[in-house]
Amino acid sequence: MRRRSLHGFSAFVVLLAMGAVAAYAQEAQTVKLPAPRTEGGKPLMQALKERRSTREFSPEKLPLQVLSDLLWAAFGINRETGQRTAPSANNRQEIDIYVATAEGLYLYEAKAHEMRRVSAEDVRALTGTQEFVKQAPINLVYVADLAKGKRTRAEDIEFYSGANTGFIAQNVYLFCASEGLACVVRALVNREALAKAMGLRPDQKITLAQTVGYPRK
Amino acid sequence: MRRRSLHGFSAFVVLLAMGAVAAYAQEAQTVKLPAPRTEGGKPLMQALKERRSTREFSPEKLPLQVLSDLLWAAFGINRETGQRTAPSANNRQEIDIYVATAEGLYLYEAKAHEMRRVSAEDVRALTGTQEFVKQAPINLVYVADLAKGKRTRAEDIEFYSGANTGFIAQNVYLFCASEGLACVVRALVNREALAKAMGLRPDQKITLAQTVGYPRK
Repeated sequence: MRRRSLHGFSAFVVLLAMGAVAAYAQEAQTVKLPAPRTEGGKPLMQALKERRSTREFSPEKLPLQVLSDLLWAAFGINRETGQRTAPSANNRQEIDIYVATAEGLYLYEAKAHEMRRVSAEDVRALTGTQEFVKQAPINLVYVADLAKGKRTRAEDIEFYSGANTGFIAQNVYLFCASEGLACVVRALVNREALAKAMGLRPDQKITLAQTVGYPRK
Repeated sequence: MRRRSLHGFSAFVVLLAMGAVAAYAQEAQTVKLPAPRTEGGKPLMQALKERRSTREFSPEKLPLQVLSDLLWAAFGINRETGQRTAPSANNRQEIDIYVATAEGLYLYEAKAHEMRRVSAEDVRALTGTQEFVKQAPINLVYVADLAKGKRTRAEDIEFYSGANTGFIAQNVYLFCASEGLACVVRALVNREALAKAMGLRPDQKITLAQTVGYPRK
């Protein structure tokens, strides 16, 4: 009886340890973002005045708070209804934002406001053709999830995935102007190679990529 | 000689009068906008927080200064290079903004920062299918000028016209959030009837429409 009890205890300890490992792995795979600062920033017209594309980036990383603010500005939830900072036709919210960093590739989960790691690989070099994409700390990759919208005409799929990405990417531009970050949106992406590295389904379509970082000094 | 001289003088007066009439007609057809206020507005993050679509509009007109600020925010020139508040691939600047009002249809000319009247007709009812489009003071109609970009693949034309419109329409959303204006972007447009009423060329393609006005009280 005592032996059995000990055995039971050991099993409990093993399970506990397994749980701890699982929890740790979980933590490494998901980056909880601090609450976004939804009040500040430059006055809108000044941000519009300073909105521009620049292609010279410092390798300096973005603090987690800035990354949190950036992703919320891009396509975060701004109402209790679950609606977001950018519109989408019929509220389909079909654009996903992937965040390519040196530490791996993450998917922005707006509801939990966290980044879920989908790959440990550094895919930044695949997000564009120019040298700066490898050096900049962040490349956002916009992906239209065609499973979320049952559009049948190929032209409509292209048009809406373009428009829905444009709304979001402009938020990112203005956030960068407000924060003094460098930023450029890019259409030239090796979509086939990048989709493979990202492990996308056939009905997930890369629309645009956008590089973000501090300006090179 | 004296007679001839008088005749010459009369002709001069007639020419002068004709010139004045022409100048007046020119003035009626072109609305010079006051310089946009490029400094103020709500802090960016607050504008993002308040960004949303609303479909209840007051018929109250926008003051000319607000219209000036709106069009500059949308796609005005924000640098000495002639570049603008929204990006466009290869700086083609292929999206034109038409402004449908009770007084007629105008084309926003960013360089001169003025609205050139292209039709005296009130085409607001044709810019959408819902009742509010007739009552709201402003319906922006975005038109991709395919003559400005020599893209050959139909999918690319659709994608880029969508993305390039999205950047601009998001600026309008944020401006409206900052100014307390109601705003909604719409894809449901009778493109054939509207293009005809607007007198568009076959290579000018209506992408989206966006209604702007004060919220209904």
